[in-house]
Amino acid sequence: MDSRTGLPVVGMVGGGQLARMTHQAAIALGQSLRVLAQSPHDGAALVAADVVIGDHTSAEDLLAFASGCDVMTFDHEHVPTEIIRSLSEAGHAVHPGADALVHAQDKGVMRAALTKAGVPSPPWAEVSTVDDVATFGGTYGWPVVLKLARGGYDGRGVWTLSGAAAAADIIAPDRAYIVEQHIPILRELAALVARSPFGQVAVWPIVQTVQEDGICIEVIAPAPDLSEGLAGEAARLAVQLADELGVVGVLAVELFETADGLLVNELAMRPHNSGHWTIEGSRTSQFEQHLRAVLDYPLGTTTMSAPWVVMVNLLGGADGGMGIDERVHHALAQWPDVKLHLYGKSPRQGRKLGHVTALGSDLEEVRARAAAAAAYLHEGGHP
Amino acid sequence: MDSRTGLPVVGMVGGGQLARMTHQAAIALGQSLRVLAQSPHDGAALVAADVVIGDHTSAEDLLAFASGCDVMTFDHEHVPTEIIRSLSEAGHAVHPGADALVHAQDKGVMRAALTKAGVPSPPWAEVSTVDDVATFGGTYGWPVVLKLARGGYDGRGVWTLSGAAAAADIIAPDRAYIVEQHIPILRELAALVARSPFGQVAVWPIVQTVQEDGICIEVIAPAPDLSEGLAGEAARLAVQLADELGVVGVLAVELFETADGLLVNELAMRPHNSGHWTIEGSRTSQFEQHLRAVLDYPLGTTTMSAPWVVMVNLLGGADGGMGIDERVHHALAQWPDVKLHLYGKSPRQGRKLGHVTALGSDLEEVRARAAAAAAYLHEGGHP
Repeated sequence: MDSRTGLPVVGMVGGGQLARMTHQAAIALGQSLRVLAQSPHDGAALVAADVVIGDHTSAEDLLAFASGCDVMTFDHEHVPTEIIRSLSEAGHAVHPGADALVHAQDKGVMRAALTKAGVPSPPWAEVSTVDDVATFGGTYGWPVVLKLARGGYDGRGVWTLSGAAAAADIIAPDRAYIVEQHIPILRELAALVARSPFGQVAVWPIVQTVQEDGICIEVIAPAPDLSEGLAGEAARLAVQLADELGVVGVLAVELFETADGLLVNELAMRPHNSGHWTIEGSRTSQFEQHLRAVLDYPLGTTTMSAPWVVMVNLLGGADGGMGIDERVHHALAQWPDVKLHLYGKSPRQGRKLGHVTALGSDLEEVRARAAAAAAYLHEGGHP
Repeated sequence: MDSRTGLPVVGMVGGGQLARMTHQAAIALGQSLRVLAQSPHDGAALVAADVVIGDHTSAEDLLAFASGCDVMTFDHEHVPTEIIRSLSEAGHAVHPGADALVHAQDKGVMRAALTKAGVPSPPWAEVSTVDDVATFGGTYGWPVVLKLARGGYDGRGVWTLSGAAAAADIIAPDRAYIVEQHIPILRELAALVARSPFGQVAVWPIVQTVQEDGICIEVIAPAPDLSEGLAGEAARLAVQLADELGVVGVLAVELFETADGLLVNELAMRPHNSGHWTIEGSRTSQFEQHLRAVLDYPLGTTTMSAPWVVMVNLLGGADGGMGIDERVHHALAQWPDVKLHLYGKSPRQGRKLGHVTALGSDLEEVRARAAAAAAYLHEGGHP
């Protein structure tokens, strides 16, 4: 408890853009997010007052960090599960807890839990050898999708294989993998929900996410032409999973829409790229809601502030001789109603440097506006 | 210029809630506001990464602070005009500059400039003795309003006098004063505008402000039942003043609406309490716009995000045995769509601790909702 303000202190492990935007939301709640960053150049470390530099895989560093927090939460999935468990056992409030978070850390654990809960998923298996992959492919057909059970993100640690031979170059003896049937999909959706320790849940409208090379590039809220039935099913799935897995904080459920219905692709238990649109697009942003949830505050309204909201990620592109400051000038001049979010990173090809959000009542116009502003910021030219 | 992000660095002198909320807006622009605070407990110092503790009346402290900034701006009016001038002369970009800001620092200079520009103001005079006040009252009638030329705020440094005798207890020989005719008003309005060095201006809708004991307690956007003619005149006045005074950044023009039209009451050249509603209520908040202006970025769209937006200040009240954390719990539960802003201050009777904002389409409902949430947070009870 901060004795001056009378408010509890939230610590977030990880100093990336999610912590950066969570700190931004924390300011309004009278908070100042305490951040465990790897480096003083991390996006959140550049903007937060209460920053500890440490190693999120060190039990010692995490324990020292926890002692200054009333509640701890995460900007990523990379803290070892057993350390989270030991923090809880030492009496620290950690949200989400180890038993929940492990489902976002380990795809094998996640798939097993989903199968047990009867949640629709692609056929899958744990594999540790090329033979295992060959057997799975023989049963379910090729291609298959091989995934690192732990540590993958943004398309890394995911391989689509047209035969077992390709697995030989990938599988390492000391890593755990799962394999999934390659499902022909219509599109990808995401259901975002927050849950508090009290058990209150709040769902945002279901969104469509557009990927390129495994990286989310665009999010459309709400998902266009989604039937009420599927939207309801997606929301129910998210609430069910938040509840059954005991999630506290934001849960993002990445979904495949197929000709036969919805399948769960991935889970994340933190603010998520598919929810960045909520900063301007919803009465309560995912960052504020995550804080409310981990503080066990009542959750905020999730109604949209415009009929359509589109977020486009800004990836580092060719410089083209025009620095980011000049691009920002030109982009803000041309699109005075597009909202810019930069994460304080030095530009690098393909790196997520920020995002833009556009709002409006004409979906095609809103998409085009967001895409044009992002393309200009990306490479100083028009798409 | 921040060599890592390629973006210029903005420094703000003063570490109060305006700097706190400006830092929040700066995060989205890829910035981290550099703050010159009086104390590490200042609202902005609690949440910003780049904080310098120093004295805003010390030329040395300001010069040292300026050396780390590409552009400097202010959260208050208390930096001596001559120091601002010397910073500019030393080659530092300061927005607003001394020649503009002096009109927000010195009510005598402001009144003289407005009179020269033909902007409607109450009759006024510079006074330094009780006799001066008596002469003015004899000409314009009683009561009169005596004001400190420099240093007053939130009703301090302003006295309504029914006769000259009362001035004897107030007037100090070493301070400058002005006196104004006491004008019967219908209500108070505010016109908020931003201006960039390039000369671009953007105006928000004219708002009504409600004062109690000289402190703004409520802002209604847009001002209800304001004629198009008066709204246009208020906006034109704000643009004219921003332009003629050479303002860079946000200019708040506090106005009296009288039976005979509008009169200018006060000027502020910074984000202003009458613009806090813009955080959720406008596509571009006053804090983002102030940053855009001082950075000479193109200004953002100022359209409203709801038909009615009402802001109510949270003043410190009787504790009533219920701490702020418990009040926040209850208030967020009852009003999940009211947005809370706390400034990180320790509670004290009458102190501005934060504000709440409500949005909607039914003015009376929105006002009642904002007032009820604020009253609950104020003293843990209903109004």
